[in-house]
Amino acid sequence: MKSVFEQILLKYGFTQTKATQCAQIFTDNTVDGITTHGINRFPRFINYTRNGYVQKDAEPSLISAFNSIEQWNGNLGPGPLNAVKATDRAMKLSQQNGIGCVALANTNHWMRGGYYGWQAAKKGFVFIGWTNTLGIMPAWKALDSRLGNNPLVMALPYKAEAIVLDMAFSQYSYGAMEFAVLKKEQLSVEGGFDKDGNLTKDPAAILQSRRPLSIGYWKGAGLSLLLDILATILSSGLSVASISKNKAEYGLSQVFICIDPSKLSNHSSIASVVQNIIEDYKQSMPAESAKIVYPGEGVLQKRKKHTEEGMNVLQTVWDEILSL
Amino acid sequence: MKSVFEQILLKYGFTQTKATQCAQIFTDNTVDGITTHGINRFPRFINYTRNGYVQKDAEPSLISAFNSIEQWNGNLGPGPLNAVKATDRAMKLSQQNGIGCVALANTNHWMRGGYYGWQAAKKGFVFIGWTNTLGIMPAWKALDSRLGNNPLVMALPYKAEAIVLDMAFSQYSYGAMEFAVLKKEQLSVEGGFDKDGNLTKDPAAILQSRRPLSIGYWKGAGLSLLLDILATILSSGLSVASISKNKAEYGLSQVFICIDPSKLSNHSSIASVVQNIIEDYKQSMPAESAKIVYPGEGVLQKRKKHTEEGMNVLQTVWDEILSL
Repeated sequence: MKSVFEQILLKYGFTQTKATQCAQIFTDNTVDGITTHGINRFPRFINYTRNGYVQKDAEPSLISAFNSIEQWNGNLGPGPLNAVKATDRAMKLSQQNGIGCVALANTNHWMRGGYYGWQAAKKGFVFIGWTNTLGIMPAWKALDSRLGNNPLVMALPYKAEAIVLDMAFSQYSYGAMEFAVLKKEQLSVEGGFDKDGNLTKDPAAILQSRRPLSIGYWKGAGLSLLLDILATILSSGLSVASISKNKAEYGLSQVFICIDPSKLSNHSSIASVVQNIIEDYKQSMPAESAKIVYPGEGVLQKRKKHTEEGMNVLQTVWDEILSL
Repeated sequence: MKSVFEQILLKYGFTQTKATQCAQIFTDNTVDGITTHGINRFPRFINYTRNGYVQKDAEPSLISAFNSIEQWNGNLGPGPLNAVKATDRAMKLSQQNGIGCVALANTNHWMRGGYYGWQAAKKGFVFIGWTNTLGIMPAWKALDSRLGNNPLVMALPYKAEAIVLDMAFSQYSYGAMEFAVLKKEQLSVEGGFDKDGNLTKDPAAILQSRRPLSIGYWKGAGLSLLLDILATILSSGLSVASISKNKAEYGLSQVFICIDPSKLSNHSSIASVVQNIIEDYKQSMPAESAKIVYPGEGVLQKRKKHTEEGMNVLQTVWDEILSL
């Protein structure tokens, strides 16, 4: 999979270094089970590159720096590559100052935000980051979608791996709802409103009304708004409202905050403290036969399974990729 | 109200300075409409002081500092006073470094987290802060409550006031559900599970099962866990699991992050950018006659109304306060 991605990226003019790195990220996301932002999204990424929304050779450039905080311009470069660089830079700032913040304007879809959480946490850092998006979710009690789902990522080292939370502020993505329609399945919980304004688990009804539900109703909608405002002003980039005026989703604003735990007085006991918290969490009494998992645990299991046993991908997607 | 609070605090041995400041915070929270963490909570605050959970004379002390990040020990002092100091210190660190983080261990309930968001935002800063709590919310698919509701606050300046998000990760607090039972009202959305494991809007059924719902189901539960882990390790303080072993809710861990927007290249345009975002948000098409408000807007309206017209408080609460 990686070598196929790499060959296609080279064909469309990516340098060897950038092709290898992009191919690795799309492959890792797929192996981790996040196919929506791995293999399934690869054709659109190539398409955006061909349309110029993604500037394949662009590199991020520094706009301003003030000790622990820096503003960078992504220059519309490939979102995953820009995000990897921003994460690297935030780690470096946190090594120098304890905490570091990189705000990145004019970048592109980072695909799977959790990738950068894993990147930082595996190197020993605490990571908090988020992105804005197109307007795809209504404000609370609104009909039209003026909010992004603005995924938020929090991560930290855990044993040899990491705890990584990667969540959008809509209960379900449009992709998940479209997939549920294809499989003729209902959503597991209410995911939005039907055209009459009633909450529903029917994905087709939500796709029709274009009213997906923000998590926690008014709460997630409010948090999404704040994340957009902060990403926009910290990066000096575009807001959800401005991005939504573009013909496609490009020119996003993102924030990458890292903390270096080795600079804390308690650094030698952090690993055992985290383990104690997770052990307590795991002692939760499950409803029926449910398994209590921490954020990122499912990803680890899928990664292991797919690495050992291989994995299935959609034939239509693979065929589309081979035709690029 | 303020002078009554102040007299009581003096009677229980608070210094004049601390009595005045605490009385002001409880009064401001009440005037802002957050009675649950204003006047209604005042008797418990006094009670905790008498029991020694809150050490009325304690001041926070510095544990460690590394440029932009500092760890403080709250020494079990009054939560609101410790939080005001931590916010002040985070603002100062952000003035020096662009971004600053204060992690505070062994502190007490900060009452209303939004207070510190308003504090920082009114002085021109971006604020991100959170606290852990007692275990009062189950992990996703769990029966027993091993997660805190861990309120998160995000704030920034807006016009002469502020945008302030202050949200817990349970859909409803126990206080809100108890109040709904008293008023014989159903919750506006599903707020938890009944004893048979069905989602319900019946607050009495949720109080019986002790299974309040985390916002966004698995999502809010995961975010709550991460906020607890980060507060615990950054502050070198107690986790939700450890706090829950105490006889009462004391010894909390909190994080205060400030960013100084005046250190950003775009500082002169930030106010107008935020205004544009809010104006776009306000153009949302409302469902029926709903009003689309931004986080903190309702607080501002209540503050104005209560300041101009006075406000009602529960007679039983006022009587209890007068008897202290």
